[in-house]
Amino acid sequence: MIPSFKSAEIASLLEGVPEGDINHKVCKLSKIEEGDEDSLCFIANPKYEHYANTATAGVLLIRKDLQVNNSKIKSIIRVDNPQAAFAKLLSVYQQFIQAGNKKTGIEPQTFIGNASTYGEGFYLGAFSYLDKNVRIGKNVSIYPNCFIGENVTLGDNTVIHAGVKIYDGCIIGANCIIHAGAVIGGDGFGFIPTENGFQKVPQTGIVVLEDDVEIGANTVIDRATLGTTIIHKGVKLDNLVHIAHNVEIGEHSAIAAQTGVSGSTKIGKHVLIGGQVGIVGHIKIDDGVKINAQSGISKSIGKNKSVSGSPATDFREHYKQLAHIKRIPELLERIKVLEEALSKTK
Amino acid sequence: MIPSFKSAEIASLLEGVPEGDINHKVCKLSKIEEGDEDSLCFIANPKYEHYANTATAGVLLIRKDLQVNNSKIKSIIRVDNPQAAFAKLLSVYQQFIQAGNKKTGIEPQTFIGNASTYGEGFYLGAFSYLDKNVRIGKNVSIYPNCFIGENVTLGDNTVIHAGVKIYDGCIIGANCIIHAGAVIGGDGFGFIPTENGFQKVPQTGIVVLEDDVEIGANTVIDRATLGTTIIHKGVKLDNLVHIAHNVEIGEHSAIAAQTGVSGSTKIGKHVLIGGQVGIVGHIKIDDGVKINAQSGISKSIGKNKSVSGSPATDFREHYKQLAHIKRIPELLERIKVLEEALSKTK
Amino acid sequence: MIPSFKSAEIASLLEGVPEGDINHKVCKLSKIEEGDEDSLCFIANPKYEHYANTATAGVLLIRKDLQVNNSKIKSIIRVDNPQAAFAKLLSVYQQFIQAGNKKTGIEPQTFIGNASTYGEGFYLGAFSYLDKNVRIGKNVSIYPNCFIGENVTLGDNTVIHAGVKIYDGCIIGANCIIHAGAVIGGDGFGFIPTENGFQKVPQTGIVVLEDDVEIGANTVIDRATLGTTIIHKGVKLDNLVHIAHNVEIGEHSAIAAQTGVSGSTKIGKHVLIGGQVGIVGHIKIDDGVKINAQSGISKSIGKNKSVSGSPATDFREHYKQLAHIKRIPELLERIKVLEEALSKTK
Repeated sequence: MIPSFKSAEIASLLEGVPEGDINHKVCKLSKIEEGDEDSLCFIANPKYEHYANTATAGVLLIRKDLQVNNSKIKSIIRVDNPQAAFAKLLSVYQQFIQAGNKKTGIEPQTFIGNASTYGEGFYLGAFSYLDKNVRIGKNVSIYPNCFIGENVTLGDNTVIHAGVKIYDGCIIGANCIIHAGAVIGGDGFGFIPTENGFQKVPQTGIVVLEDDVEIGANTVIDRATLGTTIIHKGVKLDNLVHIAHNVEIGEHSAIAAQTGVSGSTKIGKHVLIGGQVGIVGHIKIDDGVKINAQSGISKSIGKNKSVSGSPATDFREHYKQLAHIKRIPELLERIKVLEEALSKTK
Repeated sequence: MIPSFKSAEIASLLEGVPEGDINHKVCKLSKIEEGDEDSLCFIANPKYEHYANTATAGVLLIRKDLQVNNSKIKSIIRVDNPQAAFAKLLSVYQQFIQAGNKKTGIEPQTFIGNASTYGEGFYLGAFSYLDKNVRIGKNVSIYPNCFIGENVTLGDNTVIHAGVKIYDGCIIGANCIIHAGAVIGGDGFGFIPTENGFQKVPQTGIVVLEDDVEIGANTVIDRATLGTTIIHKGVKLDNLVHIAHNVEIGEHSAIAAQTGVSGSTKIGKHVLIGGQVGIVGHIKIDDGVKINAQSGISKSIGKNKSVSGSPATDFREHYKQLAHIKRIPELLERIKVLEEALSKTK
Repeated sequence: MIPSFKSAEIASLLEGVPEGDINHKVCKLSKIEEGDEDSLCFIANPKYEHYANTATAGVLLIRKDLQVNNSKIKSIIRVDNPQAAFAKLLSVYQQFIQAGNKKTGIEPQTFIGNASTYGEGFYLGAFSYLDKNVRIGKNVSIYPNCFIGENVTLGDNTVIHAGVKIYDGCIIGANCIIHAGAVIGGDGFGFIPTENGFQKVPQTGIVVLEDDVEIGANTVIDRATLGTTIIHKGVKLDNLVHIAHNVEIGEHSAIAAQTGVSGSTKIGKHVLIGGQVGIVGHIKIDDGVKINAQSGISKSIGKNKSVSGSPATDFREHYKQLAHIKRIPELLERIKVLEEALSKTK
């Protein structure tokens, strides 16, 4: 069970300012729409701020300057960044739930190949397969039904969820999280057309994930034809993303679900890419670029640019184009008026 | 083996009207393009109705008022809804094939955690893993290589195909079908940007699938940050669909392949969404909405609307816009004519 | 270890013409950006030809007529098709690496159902499941954690990577490669709307992959409602592709990542389809068609056509439309000028 905490105690943990009944206790986290007197709730997104005056909550976590006039809220804690503060609370909450619950040890019915090694605190779930010469750091968790190929390396504290497949030779850093069903290191899509159909180009490279990388469920990252497909430190990929052979993704970039990056494209640092974006091969997306959802990227993009559309342009330009298209009927009408006027002047 | 049936017997089962040689027997179901005298075929889609006068079939199942003049068809059965009648026949056919073939029992080489329980008629395939405190209803089938996390609940008659991964705490209703490789309950994609890269927002919620839900192969449904990602009764999701954290999908809605729904969006009842649609987060798609394939939805949509395009608008409006774009060359020409005419009047 | 080879020896293998120090030895393959004196590098894509004058390499493989003036390259080999020559080298390289390393035999902790048979040279990885009556040819490899359903057939030399799921009755040809996490033979997405929600249409058909087919990681191919979903000889599908029920794909066609093909559509031979394309159901894409990435195909396409856009048109027409949209501001301006001029003539 999660114990109760006073508003004042929580405020102290979050370095926030408590108001109202600072001794009011809460014992659970709730969404703002679903709170009751025992709930700690938060509002970070401006879309939800209207709840501040209508919701019920034991303790409400909000930004410093939000006006609240609501007797159904017992206590308020004001912080600089409600989302970050709430994330911190979720971490504490998760630690309570998981306390004493972390799995360790090697379950029966696993397969460990010759010369494979692992550090302390290792968890290997049943029906998981480590091929030969796998090297695993400390406190690594591999859930059931995973396949870890020959010569793969996994860094300290990395978590591999159920059913992940990592082909031979790939290198996974420390503190990575790979979600269920992801495939790391499958063959790149390389074929040469011949008179007798496609000739396969062997894919002899690997995939490298540096430290602190998180990979979503059923996402796929192909091995390089030669050399490495490399995902740098701190990158986060959502679900069902496709990363082709020889792609490079720079530090602290994030890519939303169902986006695809074609072969040999280089993406810089701190790049943010929305969902369902398609990016052609052999181009460069520079540092700090932002790409809107569903964009189609066919050319390199310069530093810190924001783009949208398919084919993508500067996002303001794209919204102007969309507005222009809506004006075509007006153009037709104005041309008709002009034509009529002109025919009368003749 | 499937026994033979007379046209009259089949007509009786389907509450249809037999014509021609009502004693003609058939022993298999075939596509209309591939039929022979032993085949029962059907035509539901108007695109295929031309086959009625050219195809070969023992028995042809068609709508009440379709004209047929074809001596290669021995008997015709007319019904109100040929597709529904054919689906009924397929069910009977499938039952014949599966008769006495339904797997039950727990195969060797499975893992069942402490305090996990299951009802009668249970099938657990080899290399499947039930963690602690899993509660499973009656007549549930779990195919090989599945992972069912701690505290997961599965309702009666539910079928979990090979290699499905369900993270801890998720609740699956009765009569659900989850296809191979689907992942239920992975972490939502929640990160807070900081000076040192992204800070993970722990995802402490669950996924709930109500009764009669079907989930396609390799589809992914993320757990809520807090609370539940909920898929209501009767919803059908196709393959490779992405459902983000805290999404809600109302009763009897259907989503085609490769569509993605972003976080906290609420979709109503009886909504139909085409393939490769992208939907932003924190919006509401009301009951009865229809969304065309490849649309991009960036705003809430009111009840019973039909939309198309990216960004999506009313579908008639969208087709008008597409037609307008094609008229731009004509506009250019007409303006040129006007400019020339005007220069002569000066 | 890979032994060293002289430039002249490699030229002889590739039927190319060596220049410079034809006795210079190399012992590894490198990307042109990462070469040193021990490296064999190649340039096939014109985008990379500028490296010919700046890169370092022991041996550089290039097209016959490329000018090179670079003392950091010890020897050059000129060939007709550098990409094909390099693919041949990669094959040789891969054979060296894999020499004596091919897995055979049945690992412990597998499941083989009644009456299943397999030929010589068989590899079955741990935790893989063969249901009843599976028929497997010679030299087949099935990696760990695979599910092969009842009555499935696998042809000679086929490789099934880790975690692949093949539902019952499907037929896989010879020399096929199926990458990790792919799902072959799940139910097609067929439902009939009724007053009480969707009624499932049983999917009683199968999937057939002919010889020399390669399927990408986490790609999904649904079984036919009735009959077969058929992928003909030599077809290559990239990752995360969706192929719906009753689709047919002709010989030697290739489909890039994240593309979806809806039910009953027929695709011809030698068709090339880019990534993230969506194709509606019940249409025909004729032989030799090329479809650009992110296109939306709503109508049948005639032989050898190249199309682009959503909805797709002839690709030249599509680029004209995009250029026209950019001219709308100019049109607005010209109309304004005309209106002002006309008002003065009155």
